[in-house]
Amino acid sequence: MTNAKRIYTFGNGKAQGNASMKALLGGKGANLAEMAGMGLPVPPGFTITTETCKTWHDAGNRMPPGLLDEVRKSVAEVEKALGRKFGGDKPLLVSVRSGAAASMPGMMDTVLNLGLNNETVVALANETVNARFAWDSFRRFITMYGDVVAGVDRKLMEHEYEAAKKRAGVTKDSDLSADHLKYAAGAMLALFRTRTGQDFPQDPWLQLERAIEAVFESWNNMRAVEYRRLNRIHGLLGTAVNVQAMVFGNLNEESGTGVGFTRDPSTGENEFFCDVLFNAQGEDVVAGLRTPEHLDALKQRMPEVHAQLLQARQTLEQHYRDMQDIEFTIQDRKLYLLQTRNGKRTARAALRIAISMVEEKLLTQQQALLKIDASSLNQLLHPMFDPKAARRVIATGIPASPGAAKGMAVFSPDAAEQWAARGQSVILVREETSPEDIKGMAAAAGILTARGGRTSHAAVVARQMGKTCVAGCQTLAIDETAQQFVVGKFTVKQGDTISLNGATGDVMLGDVPTVPPELSGDFRTIMKWSDELRTLGVRANADVPRDALKAREFGAQGIGLCRTEHMFFDSDRINKMREMILAKTLEQKQHALAKLLPMQRSDFLGLFSAMDGLPVTIRLLDPPLHEFLPHDAATQQVIAEELDVSLKTVQDTMANLHEMNPMLGLRGCRLGIEQPLIYDMQVQAIIEAMREATAQGIQVHAEIMIPLVGTLEELRWLRRRIEEQLTQFNLHHGSKLAPKIGTMIEVPRAALTADQIATEADFFSFGTNDLTQMTLGVSRDDAEKGFLIDYVVRGIFPTDPFATIDRQGVGKLVEMGVKLGRGVKPDLKVGICGEHGGDPESIEFCHEVGMDYVSCSPYRVPIARLAAAQAAIKHK
Amino acid sequence: MTNAKRIYTFGNGKAQGNASMKALLGGKGANLAEMAGMGLPVPPGFTITTETCKTWHDAGNRMPPGLLDEVRKSVAEVEKALGRKFGGDKPLLVSVRSGAAASMPGMMDTVLNLGLNNETVVALANETVNARFAWDSFRRFITMYGDVVAGVDRKLMEHEYEAAKKRAGVTKDSDLSADHLKYAAGAMLALFRTRTGQDFPQDPWLQLERAIEAVFESWNNMRAVEYRRLNRIHGLLGTAVNVQAMVFGNLNEESGTGVGFTRDPSTGENEFFCDVLFNAQGEDVVAGLRTPEHLDALKQRMPEVHAQLLQARQTLEQHYRDMQDIEFTIQDRKLYLLQTRNGKRTARAALRIAISMVEEKLLTQQQALLKIDASSLNQLLHPMFDPKAARRVIATGIPASPGAAKGMAVFSPDAAEQWAARGQSVILVREETSPEDIKGMAAAAGILTARGGRTSHAAVVARQMGKTCVAGCQTLAIDETAQQFVVGKFTVKQGDTISLNGATGDVMLGDVPTVPPELSGDFRTIMKWSDELRTLGVRANADVPRDALKAREFGAQGIGLCRTEHMFFDSDRINKMREMILAKTLEQKQHALAKLLPMQRSDFLGLFSAMDGLPVTIRLLDPPLHEFLPHDAATQQVIAEELDVSLKTVQDTMANLHEMNPMLGLRGCRLGIEQPLIYDMQVQAIIEAMREATAQGIQVHAEIMIPLVGTLEELRWLRRRIEEQLTQFNLHHGSKLAPKIGTMIEVPRAALTADQIATEADFFSFGTNDLTQMTLGVSRDDAEKGFLIDYVVRGIFPTDPFATIDRQGVGKLVEMGVKLGRGVKPDLKVGICGEHGGDPESIEFCHEVGMDYVSCSPYRVPIARLAAAQAAIKHK
Repeated sequence: MTNAKRIYTFGNGKAQGNASMKALLGGKGANLAEMAGMGLPVPPGFTITTETCKTWHDAGNRMPPGLLDEVRKSVAEVEKALGRKFGGDKPLLVSVRSGAAASMPGMMDTVLNLGLNNETVVALANETVNARFAWDSFRRFITMYGDVVAGVDRKLMEHEYEAAKKRAGVTKDSDLSADHLKYAAGAMLALFRTRTGQDFPQDPWLQLERAIEAVFESWNNMRAVEYRRLNRIHGLLGTAVNVQAMVFGNLNEESGTGVGFTRDPSTGENEFFCDVLFNAQGEDVVAGLRTPEHLDALKQRMPEVHAQLLQARQTLEQHYRDMQDIEFTIQDRKLYLLQTRNGKRTARAALRIAISMVEEKLLTQQQALLKIDASSLNQLLHPMFDPKAARRVIATGIPASPGAAKGMAVFSPDAAEQWAARGQSVILVREETSPEDIKGMAAAAGILTARGGRTSHAAVVARQMGKTCVAGCQTLAIDETAQQFVVGKFTVKQGDTISLNGATGDVMLGDVPTVPPELSGDFRTIMKWSDELRTLGVRANADVPRDALKAREFGAQGIGLCRTEHMFFDSDRINKMREMILAKTLEQKQHALAKLLPMQRSDFLGLFSAMDGLPVTIRLLDPPLHEFLPHDAATQQVIAEELDVSLKTVQDTMANLHEMNPMLGLRGCRLGIEQPLIYDMQVQAIIEAMREATAQGIQVHAEIMIPLVGTLEELRWLRRRIEEQLTQFNLHHGSKLAPKIGTMIEVPRAALTADQIATEADFFSFGTNDLTQMTLGVSRDDAEKGFLIDYVVRGIFPTDPFATIDRQGVGKLVEMGVKLGRGVKPDLKVGICGEHGGDPESIEFCHEVGMDYVSCSPYRVPIARLAAAQAAIKHK
Repeated sequence: MTNAKRIYTFGNGKAQGNASMKALLGGKGANLAEMAGMGLPVPPGFTITTETCKTWHDAGNRMPPGLLDEVRKSVAEVEKALGRKFGGDKPLLVSVRSGAAASMPGMMDTVLNLGLNNETVVALANETVNARFAWDSFRRFITMYGDVVAGVDRKLMEHEYEAAKKRAGVTKDSDLSADHLKYAAGAMLALFRTRTGQDFPQDPWLQLERAIEAVFESWNNMRAVEYRRLNRIHGLLGTAVNVQAMVFGNLNEESGTGVGFTRDPSTGENEFFCDVLFNAQGEDVVAGLRTPEHLDALKQRMPEVHAQLLQARQTLEQHYRDMQDIEFTIQDRKLYLLQTRNGKRTARAALRIAISMVEEKLLTQQQALLKIDASSLNQLLHPMFDPKAARRVIATGIPASPGAAKGMAVFSPDAAEQWAARGQSVILVREETSPEDIKGMAAAAGILTARGGRTSHAAVVARQMGKTCVAGCQTLAIDETAQQFVVGKFTVKQGDTISLNGATGDVMLGDVPTVPPELSGDFRTIMKWSDELRTLGVRANADVPRDALKAREFGAQGIGLCRTEHMFFDSDRINKMREMILAKTLEQKQHALAKLLPMQRSDFLGLFSAMDGLPVTIRLLDPPLHEFLPHDAATQQVIAEELDVSLKTVQDTMANLHEMNPMLGLRGCRLGIEQPLIYDMQVQAIIEAMREATAQGIQVHAEIMIPLVGTLEELRWLRRRIEEQLTQFNLHHGSKLAPKIGTMIEVPRAALTADQIATEADFFSFGTNDLTQMTLGVSRDDAEKGFLIDYVVRGIFPTDPFATIDRQGVGKLVEMGVKLGRGVKPDLKVGICGEHGGDPESIEFCHEVGMDYVSCSPYRVPIARLAAAQAAIKHK
């Protein structure tokens, strides 16, 4: 690294770096270089690399030898380009900004006007014939430098400024004269001396050196470290430092500053979405003291700059082939671009922009699809608050985790758990949340806090859990003891219903109605393109015809997982299941199962009908039997009476079925082997439904899937039994029914011995939920309320392994399983069911390992279709 | 297979097969061929292969084309060798016996004298001038053929024989004349016709064909299939059929039969252990009607045969280089060997024989070690009933599972569970056991049944569980309702103490004292040889100095696993642990931990002292915290009072710590990260003990082991913390303590990512107990009382995966873990702790994958030393 280039210059239509060098130059530096390289008007400057930052830290916060000489040489180039002198008569002023590869609040942000001192401020005043401007620039510099380099509280500096205004008897900044500002600057310099014990550095080179070091140091300050931790930003070297010649939007009325999106970020329409503020610097826009003007104002006042800006917009879009979020400054009717980056947008806008750019021939269909965040489609598919419904917004907080949640307000995690256990939807309202609240958060439909922002505990955990969250709603006065909050004239007590809009931060009184999503033409277009490109099939997990139809509507090509146990939990069936479990004799068991048979048959018939012509994978019973019996004595008594058995029988059966670790217990195919009558009944129901459906003219493609297989012998034994049953049935009915028989791969051993298991399987379906639990040794139910979230926040798990597949561990097993299975059976059909099947990153993994399909919940089918196309494009 | 050789002949000093062909010729056939090839006197004959049996079954129980012609050709060779004719005037008689590769009761055993019919019996009488012998041979043949080939109940045949005796007015067999026997044979032939509807076959070739088919068929009869299932005999093709010329020990007083061991099977002394019965056939010995005579009787009566037999003994031992179990027949002063096989022996005998054979230069040390069943050493190490103690043996059953068990008699599995839960040792007494009894069996110290043999449910399950079992004790009259059994004049009621000797089958009244084992000089010799040959280290799992010293005495080279949690369960400490768990503030937690610190320090000091000079691996706390709190309300109340907290605090804490699947929950390093104070205390105790021990002149080699690591980040975080603590301590005390820091590999993900984890680990120790649970998805606690045993019995698991490592699944992960770890750190020290470390098959696996050591319970250390040597010899 010693010989690595440490400084990259840009400006004057050329640059040493470019947009691809974000890791080394940071996002801001790489884009400045790119713009300069394109010939766009960028004030000249240079970027010190992120590697240099690392070197500085590694050396115990010391400047690498020779770096300052290189800085001087680079400043000299800027001086030459502009014909100005750093610290000279026609003074060069610079901005110093941090800029890492990922956007990261908390680091030292910006020092503007660096290079001013008691002499250059006068030179600047003379040059610009604008003493007021020069002294205003100086006092701004002193404030920023004091704050971010020397640790003098910005408020103290501002206090001096306010004192100066008071002394001058004015209230508006613009009413201050040059002399007033000079006085204020003097007071600030004195304050600087008092607070730091040292004079304000007059040497511009010393100013620059210290500012650079302050940027380096800020990389490891607490806020930045915490931010990286909370946002799971790992693997960066450090921050780059951007040193750039100042341009002044506040020089005069021929100057100004602006920000804009090259297209509408809400709708994606091809309209320049841009605001301008004349005679102002960027920070004035942010401060929000003045209202920016529309682009038309610029067209009127400076038509040639307006034209330049439109040209720049076009050049940037042509170049980046994406919607840009830009910042610019106009100085003396000359346009300068200060920043560009890909703009954030809604899902709706993302689709529109992608499609327009294809129409405009800016992008190919493939490139366009890659620009869309597949997960964001979620926004389009879920119910939203009815835009036409009346609503009373009583407060607005920070939209911290999206969604539309409604429920009764509760003020403690215990209450949340208790009320939720009674089947009520609750919104947990807290001053702020802490790790002790996690179970309550898990039980709530949404979370509302009075304190904390997008990276607060509540926000991070809620996003993790997929819960709606509005955070930092400061207008709420929460009284946890009285179990109520007051906001304005409204008082919300425990049990009152409120609604939270996680996308806007709105808190609303009452139960605001929701409406189903409207899927636009753009959505259909993107899905069509995706389907043409993807090679991975997309199926859905659905247990009932209603879900199957919904999945089909969303484009599912079959059912990848029908969980038959869900059918047994229905209130009219669970007692028959219980009767079977409590039966003492074989005959009693058979009798109880015989009652379930016609119900299961009609379930399957419904599914086959809904999925006419498409494959339907039916998983035989998976959960342990104790899940069907109640745990509390009162319900046990009711059951005993209903089923005419003794309470003791119920309790003895429960005790007998009790397991220390049911996750690793008697369930899945183990139950199928130890109590074969249950699978017998299910297989019978499948076969009979196949026959009936076929008779009705339905095209049936049934696949029987055996869960929790860990050894070849389990699968062989069950397969033989099913085949015998099938042979008998076909013989008796003269039919030729031939459902496929396959297996879940969800026990690590099954993946490790997939070459054996494949010999008896027509297909594999990776159950990565359980595979993740066993491979990581993490019980999901327990861990999601406990250490799992902490592990994700700490970065021990880079992401939640139940949301995105753990490539290095679980992924390795999946890859082995696919390879071993296909090694003995090259055309083995392989898919995945479980939640990873709906996660774009995991879908890319599934594509890479050569799976045939993914299966996910109906609402994630569109996401999967797009993600599958993106994977196919990336790995062509 | 069509062209494969189907018949292998032997006799006349040569043979087509040999002892290595057991899979094809069965054990009996292979050894007959081997003996014939050696020139030993074996009656000539031939063996039909096991493959032919498979072909017969595959073809739907039909004779393979051409087989009978080959049989005729082979019989012709025997005729030629003996100058006799099958069905001729000087008739050749043959025996037909089954013989698979594994000994297997339940298959058709033996038909003797085949070839006799109404004509040949007369020819035989004339030739031998012994009509009585000829007719006796015929009636025996009719009985056996009727029973095993034609399905005529043996009892009916015997009934005819008894009727003949009655009719003759005699009671002893020997008093029957030739005519009486002729009459009996006639009656049996008539019975055969009545029962089968067909005449007894007079054609010897038809007799032979049907007998061969009966052997083939018996391979798949219910008893044989059941036996294979229960004894987990998998992968055999079928049974071989041995057809061999008859020789007659019952021809006259110059004839006889005998069985023997070439050395004493109890002590291993080099003495010929042999019994002879004159004028008798083998079945007479088995029937036990006459008492066999000592070898000296043979020496007196037929010195030349005696000399031949001694010669044969020597030849066989020289050849097989092992103690042999032989059967022989003498006909007219001519010796014939009918069978040889390696003899079963006690552990004591095994050691003696191995050592003697080395002294006799029959074996090298390496060969000798391979002859010993390492697991059998267990017999020598455990307490045995004191041979000098008075005892009252009230009954003797079948020794079904070894051990010395004592306890109160109980007569139902529920009682066994309840009494055991109260801390009492119980013996479960049952008529016979069934799967419903398994939990009760698990709770009992020993099992006693009145019915069933070595392969009964009780016997198989008890061996599986490692419980002492005496089965089939038929003299017991058990009354389960009255909860007692009567035997002779004794009545044993529920609660009465009895003792079971699983090695002898003795049932004794009262609590018979046990004595520690006496380790003989032979034991030490074998251990010395083992240590010289093995490359694998052997350590022990020990938590307290007492166990550590015992392990050292048994030859352990260090402690591979000290489970620190066991120290916390001590009655004087658990409350301090509870205080820590129930503490609400950090200070309270620290306060409670501070009380545990000196105790832990003294634990470690004791271990370091006991293992002076040897490594001690200390695992930091592993179990979940709820294991330290009581589950019942009464004890919770006591705890609350003792610790001065509210009952609600105890209950809330329990509820908070409750997990669905604690096995996969907050324990091990997860606890270390989430509640770092506990590990801090433990590390502090280790460091302080190291310093104190060193000051006392003890050589300390401490290794800190972190459990349940699944990701590199967990290990890195904890390692950093431990290293910081260590640095602080060393700085403060001017010491240079440097314990190794390593990790368990027990989560599948750790094995899959071992290349990452090795970068932060000084050593790996495979925790194959948990690794097996997670890789197979089997909760051991639950499964051992449930489906696991059934899975082993059914052959779904070839062996109990918690006893012998599952090579194909878990083993694959272990192999990956070792390779990946050593890939980045070639000298990474790798061991195994957990029960597989004491299992010979698993130890061989550990050797193969290149581990440095195994660690096992102190009592298994000698087994591990021998098994490690055996592995080294086998894989040289």
